[in-house]
Amino acid sequence: MHIDIQFLPSSPHPNLLSNRVVVVIDVLRATSVMIHAVSQGTSEIIPLATVEEALQMAKGFSRESVLLGGERESKSIPGFDLGNSPKEYVAERVKGKKLILTTTNGTKAFHVVSSGKEILVGSFFNIAAIAQRCLELNKDVFIFPSGDEGKFSLEDTLCGGMLIDRITKKRQEPISLTDASICARIIYERFKENLLEAFGLSHHGKELIQRGFEDDLVYCTQTDITDVVPVFRDGVVRVN
Amino acid sequence: MHIDIQFLPSSPHPNLLSNRVVVVIDVLRATSVMIHAVSQGTSEIIPLATVEEALQMAKGFSRESVLLGGERESKSIPGFDLGNSPKEYVAERVKGKKLILTTTNGTKAFHVVSSGKEILVGSFFNIAAIAQRCLELNKDVFIFPSGDEGKFSLEDTLCGGMLIDRITKKRQEPISLTDASICARIIYERFKENLLEAFGLSHHGKELIQRGFEDDLVYCTQTDITDVVPVFRDGVVRVN
Repeated sequence: MHIDIQFLPSSPHPNLLSNRVVVVIDVLRATSVMIHAVSQGTSEIIPLATVEEALQMAKGFSRESVLLGGERESKSIPGFDLGNSPKEYVAERVKGKKLILTTTNGTKAFHVVSSGKEILVGSFFNIAAIAQRCLELNKDVFIFPSGDEGKFSLEDTLCGGMLIDRITKKRQEPISLTDASICARIIYERFKENLLEAFGLSHHGKELIQRGFEDDLVYCTQTDITDVVPVFRDGVVRVN
Repeated sequence: MHIDIQFLPSSPHPNLLSNRVVVVIDVLRATSVMIHAVSQGTSEIIPLATVEEALQMAKGFSRESVLLGGERESKSIPGFDLGNSPKEYVAERVKGKKLILTTTNGTKAFHVVSSGKEILVGSFFNIAAIAQRCLELNKDVFIFPSGDEGKFSLEDTLCGGMLIDRITKKRQEPISLTDASICARIIYERFKENLLEAFGLSHHGKELIQRGFEDDLVYCTQTDITDVVPVFRDGVVRVN
């Protein structure tokens, strides 16, 4: 098994994706929202790049069956049902509903890696379950941090590093790590006792604090609170 | 002062370069070669992307005034005078000569960042001098590891992290670090007592060992063996 992580969210070379398990990570906050929503009973999530696409998509469904969620500049989108705080996505709001989600970084990332063999949705919330699924699938792993408006993201890399650490510790057979994977694991080693410290140092973490979302940072550090492994396939995220 | 480091050697956005000091790093081995050669009296270096360009350029000079150096797949190029081992570039061979250099990653990198305000050539050999020059220039710094055939490079990032550490410790006024700069400094913290360990873990380091260049790894860990700060301007590297 070979594990790579791509530090900038540009389109990977198609050769990097074919026959690999891709794990998309946007800890603050899109993949945390998706995992939380699915764990609370959302039937499926459609991640879309733009607000216009989301509004257009919603027209195809009855209003009571669908929720519109996401953010622009961290804030709720006018006319949408929910923002981008994972804790909004509780069973009372989301159970049995279809969620159409659009965020600045995370929802775009799925479309960039859509040629992956199997595309999993990861965050601290489900990291053990993601590691376990990667071990079961037994294919090379390509971790795709969704970044911070095209730039490198500390918090997503930290989460990727935790995933690499978990897989490496659980697997008996040797694993080859790229230079980037080695470094992501070192970043995890540095912050493993205090994930919140990393969030507080990161550009996007500081931005969220300034915008009043400090609670979300604390909430998103929760590790292994669910076993769901959402999978992105044919444009839709579901648990399967 | 703001310090950024770009983890993949793709073309940076022009906005990232204007009015910034760019530091190009290819520890194994192009920038180590360049710094070594200049410290030993090479009059100027012309870094070129391809072997064809190098051969063509050499035709414009008298044969005794110019040296052709570089590598492909780590090995010397047929018909060239010198390979890509820094220790080949000693005064007896290079003093007063013009060097035309072409390597897989490092020499290309200069052309990718050629719109930078001031473009410096860095490696462990001259890291204190580079840090000092950055402090004197007092502009934002953009570190550009030249990578490993388009991929992230552990050893170049480590060297970038050392530079960030040196600048940060010497400057009185606050410095803003990007997420990538914070992480590069953590990588440096991890390996600062044993740079050779990092070389031995890195993809390109292992490749060089396999190809018989283990001595170069040891040689390239030498830190602050020269005060030269080569500058790339108008296609040529000189000390000024």
